[in-house]
Amino acid sequence: MIRLGLAGYGYWGPNLARAVTGLPDCRLEVIADMAPPALARAALAHPGARLTPSIAQMIADPQVDAVMIATPVTTHFELSMAALRHGKHVLVEKPMAETADRARLMIDEAARRNLVLMVDHTFVYTGAVQAIARLIEAGEIGALFYYDSVRVNLGLFQRDVNVIWDLAVHDFSIMERLIKARPVAISASAAGFLPDRPENLAHLSVYYDDGAMAHLNVNWLAPVKIRQTLIGGSRKMIVYDDMQASEKVKVYDRGAEAPADPYAQMISYRLGDMHAPALSPKEALVTEAEEFLRCIRDSAVPLTDGASGLRVVEMLEAASRSSGLRGFPIDLTTLKEAS
Amino acid sequence: MIRLGLAGYGYWGPNLARAVTGLPDCRLEVIADMAPPALARAALAHPGARLTPSIAQMIADPQVDAVMIATPVTTHFELSMAALRHGKHVLVEKPMAETADRARLMIDEAARRNLVLMVDHTFVYTGAVQAIARLIEAGEIGALFYYDSVRVNLGLFQRDVNVIWDLAVHDFSIMERLIKARPVAISASAAGFLPDRPENLAHLSVYYDDGAMAHLNVNWLAPVKIRQTLIGGSRKMIVYDDMQASEKVKVYDRGAEAPADPYAQMISYRLGDMHAPALSPKEALVTEAEEFLRCIRDSAVPLTDGASGLRVVEMLEAASRSSGLRGFPIDLTTLKEAS
Amino acid sequence: MIRLGLAGYGYWGPNLARAVTGLPDCRLEVIADMAPPALARAALAHPGARLTPSIAQMIADPQVDAVMIATPVTTHFELSMAALRHGKHVLVEKPMAETADRARLMIDEAARRNLVLMVDHTFVYTGAVQAIARLIEAGEIGALFYYDSVRVNLGLFQRDVNVIWDLAVHDFSIMERLIKARPVAISASAAGFLPDRPENLAHLSVYYDDGAMAHLNVNWLAPVKIRQTLIGGSRKMIVYDDMQASEKVKVYDRGAEAPADPYAQMISYRLGDMHAPALSPKEALVTEAEEFLRCIRDSAVPLTDGASGLRVVEMLEAASRSSGLRGFPIDLTTLKEAS
Amino acid sequence: MIRLGLAGYGYWGPNLARAVTGLPDCRLEVIADMAPPALARAALAHPGARLTPSIAQMIADPQVDAVMIATPVTTHFELSMAALRHGKHVLVEKPMAETADRARLMIDEAARRNLVLMVDHTFVYTGAVQAIARLIEAGEIGALFYYDSVRVNLGLFQRDVNVIWDLAVHDFSIMERLIKARPVAISASAAGFLPDRPENLAHLSVYYDDGAMAHLNVNWLAPVKIRQTLIGGSRKMIVYDDMQASEKVKVYDRGAEAPADPYAQMISYRLGDMHAPALSPKEALVTEAEEFLRCIRDSAVPLTDGASGLRVVEMLEAASRSSGLRGFPIDLTTLKEAS
Repeated sequence: MIRLGLAGYGYWGPNLARAVTGLPDCRLEVIADMAPPALARAALAHPGARLTPSIAQMIADPQVDAVMIATPVTTHFELSMAALRHGKHVLVEKPMAETADRARLMIDEAARRNLVLMVDHTFVYTGAVQAIARLIEAGEIGALFYYDSVRVNLGLFQRDVNVIWDLAVHDFSIMERLIKARPVAISASAAGFLPDRPENLAHLSVYYDDGAMAHLNVNWLAPVKIRQTLIGGSRKMIVYDDMQASEKVKVYDRGAEAPADPYAQMISYRLGDMHAPALSPKEALVTEAEEFLRCIRDSAVPLTDGASGLRVVEMLEAASRSSGLRGFPIDLTTLKEAS
Repeated sequence: MIRLGLAGYGYWGPNLARAVTGLPDCRLEVIADMAPPALARAALAHPGARLTPSIAQMIADPQVDAVMIATPVTTHFELSMAALRHGKHVLVEKPMAETADRARLMIDEAARRNLVLMVDHTFVYTGAVQAIARLIEAGEIGALFYYDSVRVNLGLFQRDVNVIWDLAVHDFSIMERLIKARPVAISASAAGFLPDRPENLAHLSVYYDDGAMAHLNVNWLAPVKIRQTLIGGSRKMIVYDDMQASEKVKVYDRGAEAPADPYAQMISYRLGDMHAPALSPKEALVTEAEEFLRCIRDSAVPLTDGASGLRVVEMLEAASRSSGLRGFPIDLTTLKEAS
Repeated sequence: MIRLGLAGYGYWGPNLARAVTGLPDCRLEVIADMAPPALARAALAHPGARLTPSIAQMIADPQVDAVMIATPVTTHFELSMAALRHGKHVLVEKPMAETADRARLMIDEAARRNLVLMVDHTFVYTGAVQAIARLIEAGEIGALFYYDSVRVNLGLFQRDVNVIWDLAVHDFSIMERLIKARPVAISASAAGFLPDRPENLAHLSVYYDDGAMAHLNVNWLAPVKIRQTLIGGSRKMIVYDDMQASEKVKVYDRGAEAPADPYAQMISYRLGDMHAPALSPKEALVTEAEEFLRCIRDSAVPLTDGASGLRVVEMLEAASRSSGLRGFPIDLTTLKEAS
Repeated sequence: MIRLGLAGYGYWGPNLARAVTGLPDCRLEVIADMAPPALARAALAHPGARLTPSIAQMIADPQVDAVMIATPVTTHFELSMAALRHGKHVLVEKPMAETADRARLMIDEAARRNLVLMVDHTFVYTGAVQAIARLIEAGEIGALFYYDSVRVNLGLFQRDVNVIWDLAVHDFSIMERLIKARPVAISASAAGFLPDRPENLAHLSVYYDDGAMAHLNVNWLAPVKIRQTLIGGSRKMIVYDDMQASEKVKVYDRGAEAPADPYAQMISYRLGDMHAPALSPKEALVTEAEEFLRCIRDSAVPLTDGASGLRVVEMLEAASRSSGLRGFPIDLTTLKEAS
């Protein structure tokens, strides 16, 4: 029986609480939130859990084995470190910290104590991304050429983070899962159109060591909502459209081949069948919660471990830096690993 | 009666020939193409035109008042200069030249001789772009925040030019028409996935002096064909989807406003009506041909004159440069005008 | 303060309960359901309401002014009659009864006692149908020519009612709201493809006295979910697509006109702008609950009163009859009114 | 070498002429059209063909082996009979005649003379319908439950035939190809909204002897163009959307199954993969022309022979009759075969 504590019952916390409810051999032991109305809602939805306004107290609670942190990003580092120091396993919201340096400290702390440190990169656990990952790993796509994502809509403007930290973080976590090559540089542009607000539009290009390329288009001020990713490979290509009610993932047996003889003129195009695999209907957060519990039980490394969380934060930092320099490319190869 | 000569009856030339056929007070006098099969096709479709395998001879023909040049880009400069020197008005395919320096020479030559030099930026004359231009000029959109275009498909790979010169040229010409601000810098990334072939995927960010931003996503190796442009403004926003059979242009009364008080928390969102104006069904090339003839008659400056053609070539050059430097931003403010 | 009693807390009841919660000057006084688990859920969600396993007791409760009936259709008649006889206003699920004869008795009972009898035709209160009704009433559409609806999906097969009673009921209630002409005949075809199950596919044609026509295509065994209605008028035409996240209602300034001279050959087509009005985001059930409360307070006739509910049931009966006769047309003009 | 004569070079004739051009071992020998401008266009496009204003003369021409008839429907019978009597094979536009009786005479005449009589049901030869036919014949779909087609748009109103004869004819010919069961009854409703013009909207239900059902929704006065057919089967289901640029045919591994025990409550739903086969890019008319030539050479029976053309005309007649009787079902089982 793994006893869970939840820090933060605002926007995302209730989803985590619901996801772990009903999973075998675990129990939502304590919910902590400073805001009395949040605690009142928690009481209604989770009558079996103890409630406290003190996150610190929950973290120190000997009845708690593992902590889920769903508080604002600026608190992730301190709360995670406190929890690890109290010997608790940690599942922390994305991004795992506001700086790569802090993420490295978190990883080191978890490693030193043999604790699970997992980042809540929810998209990685969706049926769609899981299906794409399986296709890539099975070699169906061939060599991965590019990942090209559009993630735009109207709102929700954030006050403290720009659109890169709010939206690109999703794609970075998906890229971490799908792309085995190593990112070597990033170039980004960004603009903000509301006064006194962070940038609301950005374009990011990521260069990989094998020549692959990723591109993200994120925007809070678009007339329509688009969530569409094109994935190009040497054998097949994928359209992943998260706005579709069904057939979110379409696999096209299409491509182009240059003739072996470079002086031959004609490129040949392949226009074969399209296939949309049925996706797991299981909720992503439940899959993720199961992964967290499994790793605690088996002392295993989660799919979205601290190391992947760190690389996401590094990308976010580098993208922000580049966007301040009008696309000046930032080298990613000189970044240090967590020790 | 304006007598027209056509240079090149390959892929695009027949369209130009067809567009001018039936227009009042003009005549397709001569068609020139080196390839006998092209001339045979021209004879069938335009029995009233004289045919010649010599473009030089057509250009020198005293019976020709104006020349339309639909030959490969590497010949644009020489053929245009020869035509201008023979006192002919010129309509030349896009891009008008392979370098900005050559484009400047063409502009100077036309100016010196008081001849019309027009570039065949066909998209500018479509009902869709015309409608968008009217909306912007009428102030319907408010301040233009961004232009964000996706222009991807599978094929047609070019051998001699990369995807920037092949596809981004369309967006650059549309931006020339729609955006009154001055582009100050460009950052581009590109990649090629077929050996011994030019880059087939590119992302381009253009910075404007008023803070506006344009972004182009061009790709010859995409699983599906997308031609979609989002245009964001302070009052309204536009989705221009050229793949739609109807309602290519949708105008959304949507947007976000920050409160005047920067310390106030909430941004307010506007979610009003959507409106899709009926577009002119007139073929773009016919509108363009009329513009060419009108400018010849009235000694007027065409909408897509040499100067706009030059700026497009400058953007193409700068984008290519930046893409070779992984997005390093290229300053556009130091470029010289045609003298 | 209007005190409400709710009969049935199964599939739909919770929605009604939620809709009235928070409305001014009313209170959800009692929730009645025979099933203990349903009552347990009700207790959690509506801690302020009294609970009882006896619907009869709730109906007789002197603390209850009005009753909402969300029980299976076969119980609508008896429960509604009991409530009316206890002097309660009634809001009853659609269809209001299994036969038109019973619906007439319900109407008579309510009229005799000056009580509100309202049918829960939820679609009538959606922002989309409200907007369409306004357009028609303002004369924007001109003469209404046809209403043509496709309402198909995979599942949910019902055991006791066929697809006509399950899905066509929605369109009949919308037609009641939108079409002022009088339906004079109905022809329907139906088929069932699962053994021992009611018909799962049906097509219904309704003839109106002014020449207008309505058609419904309903199907539980379709590969995709479609909710699309075309509405043709002499001035404009509407596409109402309920599967769209936004722009559910599109108004096309399109049509055809025959020349006055019948011997003239050419019909002229109008291809004007398209306009998608912003729809009220208010939940339909809340609008409906407000209408119920307003009519109780003002002794007013609800938009979806017993009379409209009766006509819907008459159409359902006639459609079922016709479908058993392979489309033999059923005359609707000889049906009697409630006395 | 089969020598072809073409009767009629108006709207459709040029397509037939183009389709046979370039096919091996055949020659477009004569083109006949009463209208001089049509002949002028024919001369330009087919300089190798002889031209005549007399269809009768072309039909009698001993240099002509087979005749393609692309004239108005009222002339199909007489021209086809004349051609058959002169010993020519015939490919005739759809519908093959204005009455089933005349169609039977044509079939008898062709049979007596051992000549090919083929009807130009073009849709049957499209890559989409061919692919669907293959899927059905391979058992992929299982038992065919229903064919449900929407074929609506704005215009082109016909003057002499109503929308059933203009649009439903396409579906009837496709159904002839796809559905092996025997149609036993038809019920149709129709309405016209332009004065002095034939009906422009119709709904047709066809009953088959195995319980399958077909339904057609045809309309010349719709705000948008829709060409969508749902095909339901016991194993899989198909969406055929002819307005899509690619993926016109989508095969869904979806369905519902009732439990063997009729008292068991739950139906189980299957929600598997979707698959869109690549379709033959070959033009339908070329495939059809090849079929015509093949049948002439091999004395074979064409896929769209006179018998299938007759059944289409019978359905059109029955549908028109039923629509005049507000859906009164017309028995199709008592129709006589061609003798």
